[in-house]
Amino acid sequence: MTVSSPAGFTAAGIACGIKPSGDPDLSLVATTDGQPVAAAAVFTQNRMTAAPVVTTNAHLTLTGGQAAAVILNSGCANAATGALGVEDAQAMCAAVAAELGCRAEEVLVCSTGLIGYSLPMDSVRAGIPKLVAARSADGGPDAAEAIRTTDTHRKEILVSGDGFMVGGMAKGAAMLAPNMATMLAVLTTDATVEAEHLMEALRAGVAESFNAMSTDGCTSTNDTVILLASGEAGPPDAAAFRAAVAEACLDLAMQMVGDAEGHTKVVDVRVVGALSDDEARAGARKVAESQLVKCSWYGRDPYWGRVASELGTAGITFEPDKLSVRYGDLVVAEGGVTARVDEDALAAYMAQDHLEVTANLGLGDGTARILTNDLTHAYIDENMGTS
Amino acid sequence: MTVSSPAGFTAAGIACGIKPSGDPDLSLVATTDGQPVAAAAVFTQNRMTAAPVVTTNAHLTLTGGQAAAVILNSGCANAATGALGVEDAQAMCAAVAAELGCRAEEVLVCSTGLIGYSLPMDSVRAGIPKLVAARSADGGPDAAEAIRTTDTHRKEILVSGDGFMVGGMAKGAAMLAPNMATMLAVLTTDATVEAEHLMEALRAGVAESFNAMSTDGCTSTNDTVILLASGEAGPPDAAAFRAAVAEACLDLAMQMVGDAEGHTKVVDVRVVGALSDDEARAGARKVAESQLVKCSWYGRDPYWGRVASELGTAGITFEPDKLSVRYGDLVVAEGGVTARVDEDALAAYMAQDHLEVTANLGLGDGTARILTNDLTHAYIDENMGTS
Repeated sequence: MTVSSPAGFTAAGIACGIKPSGDPDLSLVATTDGQPVAAAAVFTQNRMTAAPVVTTNAHLTLTGGQAAAVILNSGCANAATGALGVEDAQAMCAAVAAELGCRAEEVLVCSTGLIGYSLPMDSVRAGIPKLVAARSADGGPDAAEAIRTTDTHRKEILVSGDGFMVGGMAKGAAMLAPNMATMLAVLTTDATVEAEHLMEALRAGVAESFNAMSTDGCTSTNDTVILLASGEAGPPDAAAFRAAVAEACLDLAMQMVGDAEGHTKVVDVRVVGALSDDEARAGARKVAESQLVKCSWYGRDPYWGRVASELGTAGITFEPDKLSVRYGDLVVAEGGVTARVDEDALAAYMAQDHLEVTANLGLGDGTARILTNDLTHAYIDENMGTS
Repeated sequence: MTVSSPAGFTAAGIACGIKPSGDPDLSLVATTDGQPVAAAAVFTQNRMTAAPVVTTNAHLTLTGGQAAAVILNSGCANAATGALGVEDAQAMCAAVAAELGCRAEEVLVCSTGLIGYSLPMDSVRAGIPKLVAARSADGGPDAAEAIRTTDTHRKEILVSGDGFMVGGMAKGAAMLAPNMATMLAVLTTDATVEAEHLMEALRAGVAESFNAMSTDGCTSTNDTVILLASGEAGPPDAAAFRAAVAEACLDLAMQMVGDAEGHTKVVDVRVVGALSDDEARAGARKVAESQLVKCSWYGRDPYWGRVASELGTAGITFEPDKLSVRYGDLVVAEGGVTARVDEDALAAYMAQDHLEVTANLGLGDGTARILTNDLTHAYIDENMGTS
């Protein structure tokens, strides 16, 4: 049920002393024989790119899409750390490679935690031999545990395809979490898939999952999603494989939104009737990232005027008179004006912990969906300080 | 010291029953003789445009930039009210015109309050004769009082130029306030200025004031700034006039940011060293509107990693290694990495209620400044519901 479930993979998680709390903070996913297999990754769009992102990207370029392992740490993002940060990230890969008997560029690296601080490399170097020695086919849960930051629970998935499996683990409780940055995910499969097709499947899966959620509109410096294919189960049906990867990504994304910092609600924002899917996406994102709209949801307030106001400033084609808005099946605005609605039914709907709000622009066939959360006192509490 | 101070203007404010609380909610600025003078206005960029914005814009087009009065109400935004909303806005202008003895299209109209609700026109119609009868050269404070929504105090200004004056009043406690929408301002001058040049001065003043602040990134459906020139003081020096209008706009904008809902700090976000002023502005706005950065300020946390991360996703030219960040004169990052700083001095600085954060991108000469606030528990309390 985890990242080490597909044949050919091992995993481990230990505490090496990065986190002052002593909680697990070093995590590994590796092939069973320590030798490279096909690999693909997608990264943050943030130009303030962290050292591990730079390193992983360079390694995959050098190998043409091959990797034997991914080492991950929590408690420090190794971001905004200059040349030393890249040195440290490369040293982590080299240390894992020495233990596994592969080349340093066949190891990928991810970090999550505070921005602007260097890794305690003595602790990390001392931890890596223990981490590699601890790996096993049952190690997935430990690995998933050791990448947690503000996550209240570990996040894992296993999707069974026809003759193959896709496993995974992830962390993330905000696009850029507060004290601890970032969303990370490592996926594995026993299917035989070339790096190029792995990348296609991963890109498509990420577009409809991790890239279709927004807890607070902030994009981390470290976001990384990696997919490794051991090839032990042979070639899959291409469409079935893509579907399984997409399903694993979406499930992990839903686990993240459901665990977002300080939220009381998961909200599914849908925009339909836009001139294009791109315009629908821009509108949905503007609504999903509006402080005012998010406060309304927290207060169980269906105030559709704020939704309309955000759509009016989303930079998309918009005609007020054609707009309708509904919460679930309850229409709150029609033709750009307030609609009559059963107030008791609406109040009951708004009290739920999962809302679906749909804005129909009445202009075309474009649709989009963004998963998000409400804005709460607890979110502010979690994000007021780094300590 | 107010909107009715320049020669040739009167003002009034009364309660007509729009607000259930019985607080003042109907406001007027009019020429002393009730006859039209040169006028200019700038409006919200929101495509979900409210009926009074549509009406005022149409009236200024019809008259070629002439107006005798502005009627304003609080307690209801008359936005998302369809054809009825435009009818109501026009009826307000017609009623004022009948009392003053001018034409309906020589009256402008502004509304602020809840979106999606129609005006109680019986109350408004009954109030207008009383409002017009109450107007006087001392009525500015009453007028400024009657446009308040969540504002904790009325906002007024008088700038004395060389032989002329610019007076004004405004309301606004968020770009789109919560229960009560919008930022409105009415400015008056006794200088003799043609409508075309009034518009130039107003556009320039607004760009560096109302358009350079962002409390929460939300743009209202009703935002309007109007400038009327009675001509009683004769032609001003053009540059001095533009400077006085800009000063009046900036002072009112500062009053708004200083009164923003639930804030504990006013923050002056400056981006320098960008490739262009436009890129600097995009970067400053991304930082100023970041939920995470705003939470940091509330927590007195100088965590510059979040500032860097926002700049990295602002869609502008950005090289992490060239970035420096300072709070006041205290440098917290240099060359893209954390700088040594006097921690006690930094803690003392962050405890102040006015912060200046400067990000130097190290790339060019582009600069920009955005005034904003922190994100607090009280902001959420004010925005959780409409009631």
